[in-house]
Amino acid sequence: MTSSSLDLADLAPLLLKKERATATFDVQACIDVVHGPRDVQARNQQLLDLVIQDPVLSDRGMIYRNHKERYEKALEKSFAYAKLLEKHGITDPAEASFVYYSIGEPLPIDVHRSMFIPTLETQMDDEQKAQWLPLAYSYQITGAYAQTELGHGSNVQGIETTAHYDPKTQEFILHSPTITSRKWWPGGLGKTANHCVLHARLFLDGQDRGVQAFLVPLRDRTTHEPLPGVTVGDIGPKIGFQSVDNGFCVLDHVRIPRRNMLMRFAKVEADGTFFKPPSDKLVYFTMVKIRVFVVFVCYRAIAFAATIGTRFSAARLQGARAKGKPENQVLDYENQQLTLFPRIALGYACMFTFRVMEQVYNQVLSQFDGELGIEQLFLLGQLHATASGLKALLTEEVANGMEAIRRACGGHGYSASSNLPYLFQVFIGACTYEGTKDVLVQQHGNFLLKCLRNPVPVSSNGALDLLAFLQADVHAKCTATTPQQLREPQVLLQAFQVRALKLLLRADAAKTSLHHLTQASLAHAESIVLSCFYQGVMAVSDPKLQAVLLQMWQLYGLWRIQANLGEFRLDDYLSSSQGAWAQDQLLELLQIVRPNAVALVDGFGISDFELNSAIGRYDGDIYRALIERATHEPLNATDVTPGYHKWLKPLLTAKL
Amino acid sequence: MTSSSLDLADLAPLLLKKERATATFDVQACIDVVHGPRDVQARNQQLLDLVIQDPVLSDRGMIYRNHKERYEKALEKSFAYAKLLEKHGITDPAEASFVYYSIGEPLPIDVHRSMFIPTLETQMDDEQKAQWLPLAYSYQITGAYAQTELGHGSNVQGIETTAHYDPKTQEFILHSPTITSRKWWPGGLGKTANHCVLHARLFLDGQDRGVQAFLVPLRDRTTHEPLPGVTVGDIGPKIGFQSVDNGFCVLDHVRIPRRNMLMRFAKVEADGTFFKPPSDKLVYFTMVKIRVFVVFVCYRAIAFAATIGTRFSAARLQGARAKGKPENQVLDYENQQLTLFPRIALGYACMFTFRVMEQVYNQVLSQFDGELGIEQLFLLGQLHATASGLKALLTEEVANGMEAIRRACGGHGYSASSNLPYLFQVFIGACTYEGTKDVLVQQHGNFLLKCLRNPVPVSSNGALDLLAFLQADVHAKCTATTPQQLREPQVLLQAFQVRALKLLLRADAAKTSLHHLTQASLAHAESIVLSCFYQGVMAVSDPKLQAVLLQMWQLYGLWRIQANLGEFRLDDYLSSSQGAWAQDQLLELLQIVRPNAVALVDGFGISDFELNSAIGRYDGDIYRALIERATHEPLNATDVTPGYHKWLKPLLTAKL
Repeated sequence: MTSSSLDLADLAPLLLKKERATATFDVQACIDVVHGPRDVQARNQQLLDLVIQDPVLSDRGMIYRNHKERYEKALEKSFAYAKLLEKHGITDPAEASFVYYSIGEPLPIDVHRSMFIPTLETQMDDEQKAQWLPLAYSYQITGAYAQTELGHGSNVQGIETTAHYDPKTQEFILHSPTITSRKWWPGGLGKTANHCVLHARLFLDGQDRGVQAFLVPLRDRTTHEPLPGVTVGDIGPKIGFQSVDNGFCVLDHVRIPRRNMLMRFAKVEADGTFFKPPSDKLVYFTMVKIRVFVVFVCYRAIAFAATIGTRFSAARLQGARAKGKPENQVLDYENQQLTLFPRIALGYACMFTFRVMEQVYNQVLSQFDGELGIEQLFLLGQLHATASGLKALLTEEVANGMEAIRRACGGHGYSASSNLPYLFQVFIGACTYEGTKDVLVQQHGNFLLKCLRNPVPVSSNGALDLLAFLQADVHAKCTATTPQQLREPQVLLQAFQVRALKLLLRADAAKTSLHHLTQASLAHAESIVLSCFYQGVMAVSDPKLQAVLLQMWQLYGLWRIQANLGEFRLDDYLSSSQGAWAQDQLLELLQIVRPNAVALVDGFGISDFELNSAIGRYDGDIYRALIERATHEPLNATDVTPGYHKWLKPLLTAKL
Repeated sequence: MTSSSLDLADLAPLLLKKERATATFDVQACIDVVHGPRDVQARNQQLLDLVIQDPVLSDRGMIYRNHKERYEKALEKSFAYAKLLEKHGITDPAEASFVYYSIGEPLPIDVHRSMFIPTLETQMDDEQKAQWLPLAYSYQITGAYAQTELGHGSNVQGIETTAHYDPKTQEFILHSPTITSRKWWPGGLGKTANHCVLHARLFLDGQDRGVQAFLVPLRDRTTHEPLPGVTVGDIGPKIGFQSVDNGFCVLDHVRIPRRNMLMRFAKVEADGTFFKPPSDKLVYFTMVKIRVFVVFVCYRAIAFAATIGTRFSAARLQGARAKGKPENQVLDYENQQLTLFPRIALGYACMFTFRVMEQVYNQVLSQFDGELGIEQLFLLGQLHATASGLKALLTEEVANGMEAIRRACGGHGYSASSNLPYLFQVFIGACTYEGTKDVLVQQHGNFLLKCLRNPVPVSSNGALDLLAFLQADVHAKCTATTPQQLREPQVLLQAFQVRALKLLLRADAAKTSLHHLTQASLAHAESIVLSCFYQGVMAVSDPKLQAVLLQMWQLYGLWRIQANLGEFRLDDYLSSSQGAWAQDQLLELLQIVRPNAVALVDGFGISDFELNSAIGRYDGDIYRALIERATHEPLNATDVTPGYHKWLKPLLTAKL
């Protein structure tokens, strides 16, 4: 196969075929690991087909629209989504979620689904749930989650909105006392929601009782006009989520009934008596849930980007080794491999990490019906801290990875036709929403410091011992005496635990240095990811697949060592030679992984419809797809654009 | 000042005032260094005011528009720009450029200005210039630069478009022989340009004479319709440059006169006799010019982002040290400083590096009129290699820095109102256009390897000895015996040179490893930046300013050591303790720089109009600005959006 004998456009699909022939494992076995039992896969395929066949939900023209146009189209999609669920009797929440995420564009009802309803479910008492949940499930009330304010984001303690209780009327008076106290950012708040869960500082008899959650009606359920005392609107365009009306809200002494406070944990009785929740964290439990879920969002995002980038790099030729020789597949370049393969590994890492954290979350959630003792509250705190640390680490790693992959796709990655821009723009919201990195690493790091300084009040840690690194030998040196030994599981796992402990001890000694605390948090989170990934690989039953995933695990570990070599060389835990070996082993693994690269992204099992990428297509027919995409550009409706006659002609004919 | 006594919205401007009072140097002295003589500054202010007062050019509504709308508006701006220059008699190229960049949105005539005209100027012979340049200057012909094809980007040798010479008619026959040979990406090619400089493979009597440049008419100068045999159109939306019609072009045996080949260096005589250029690189000299200019683009981009991020972080409060204490300025957090201060330093680093490279470029350009001997061609090759390496390093550093700053601004950074998204989206094109990182580091790295293996044929290097690192002592260890010594210029400069040489020797030993070559290229580029920055600081005459800029230089060096500590610890050049010292010194410098942070971004001298950022305003009145911006969002034209009646009402009333 040379470029002179065959049009490159025809060669590209053949190159992807060639890649699939070199795989050493069964791709379907991998898809089974990722997507579960075959009957679930078959059902998901049915659901996906429903979306693909739906005239509204199958639309992928968002890249041609501005914010307002995307929002209006997304309202239409919201309606079509609800209609599709009803028509086909889809009531299972997991199935509904699958349909929702297949649409590939966040809808104005996004937060209603993912935060408003879950908050009512976890924070309302039984009587409240009976009253409100049926209305929410059927969209009769559609909600936003109004925590963030213009002046305060992740720092809940800074919230300025007030809720004064009036025992005479048994009402709360909600108010925005300052310019910066207006709610700002909540998704769906601007134009869509007629209710919201609102976080405000509770005052009883003038006494500050901390931030609590309230259910607040915002718009008339008949006319959709804002209610008296309520000013709402859209905050304007953003990087992503252009289809969502992130909004603002100003409250002017708005009164709501006492029972509109969410009362599962905190309570205010009719006479104003206050019962505080057993833990502050319970009020923000929805945030913990979202932080765990973000690990899944990370998995999907990097799996999408890695799939697009890897297939493109296999189908794309660029540069010859010597004059007259056929061109190389871009995937044969070491730098391209070093950009892509660790990110394929990161995809599997996120997936396996999410599974462990989901188990931990469910364990903690299941305790909520019993008594909450020291042990239960510790596990809740540990979940909160670990989820925070993982979110800080993985959103950054995935965002940087997506952008690195996009850049590695050259001009075609800069084009919207690759879909990499859109995927990135939506994803990077996750670096910010529900806590920015700097806030999260403090929460995580401070928890770790507490565990370092005080005895841990639990004997078992359930799905994974999240604090195992505290038992590591901080004076150890890496035991590898040959380069190959750096790939051994115990050698790699120990390196990450020792590094995390060293950095935590340094943070402890440095006292007020946030930078040291950040290093400790990220190092611990990274050792958790490595452990979860390893545990996941060990549980894979297909031996050929397991062997390849183990290589990916090794590659992931060595890649992180290389990226943070200074930290691993602290106190010469790794010697200069061992550091160089780690790099050599990483480069060697690139070669070992190379024949399986395309099969490994096929193993994520993402459909062409979901990818929505001209250059990431399964069949590799990328050049015809790019040409076809360009025909949809509205500017190409006429050869000469309308603007020519008005502005360009006078310019060209020098009639200024 | 506590948050309880004053509305945060009122406090924000006072915080910025407070910052300016702590500066230890005169900001105007810094602006003088950045922007040159006072009369130039005054003239630039006049020019900026013309743009601000222009009803079309002052528009900043791009964030509300989709690609087609931005393009049409940008045509209007192109006309307004030309009209403004004519009306005010602005003919000086530097002044015209200043006006152009003040507009803050790339126009469809972008490439006409920056690449088409310069290519005619440098690649045409005198007779050709006399014929074509007046037409180009007056926009009668408006041009694109058509090099990239659907199947080939940075790799010029892969270009498939053919130019067969027909001596009978003395014409070239230009043709797109394959699907992937269509031109794809050139700015202005889709809808605007009526001519282009086109790169095609020249065949004389069937013999391949390499890639040459041709001037090709594309559209009828009266009707603007595509000429026979020419198919052109827009390639669709992209991340940035939405206001530009990046286009495609298919040529079907299009004939152009022999004298439409650009003949300053390569020549084809009427009978088909070929004179090849003295160096292949001469044909791509426009690319070298652009790569040097990209360092200036890098400076502006990171200076803009650092200004916005730093002012926002000074005006923004978040989180208290203890309950009841006033909240901290975000700028007081170590992580925020570690995100911002090195990027302020990077801005100054890029500015000083650009100045040196501009000198080198002009030195090389001035040789073109004389004989080109071995020495001249070496200097051209050195310029080409260094500019490539700097572009690879700095576009990545600046892009990552902009995104890091944006994330550090939390939700307000994700909002278009900050302008950080828009600035990033436009800037990151520079990571790709005119050569992606992987191609550039090879060109740079291979040049360095050649210099390592062969004697360098020049005695003097002009503005800066770009190859000084080859003389470094590769067996040396860092001489610092106290943490403070790591800040000393000779210690820092040596560390970067030794690292670059070590990595180059490793790359030489590794032979085919692109990763090793990349490390060597980036390390050398970084040592060049450090040297240029140092040279620039040493030339500053104001002692107080110089002292502060020297701190920024130290901070920059220590930051890069920390980021690449593994490389600096190679062969234990830095010991584990010295590595820890470097980090301690970096954190200490953050404290030292802190009082000057806002003054240092003020020193970039960027106007509010250019910044176009609600959160980066000079006066710090960020919250009212954010609220004001939201009023412009078209979705807020009515309280109830049109989509409600069509799609939301049926959903809310459960009438599915």
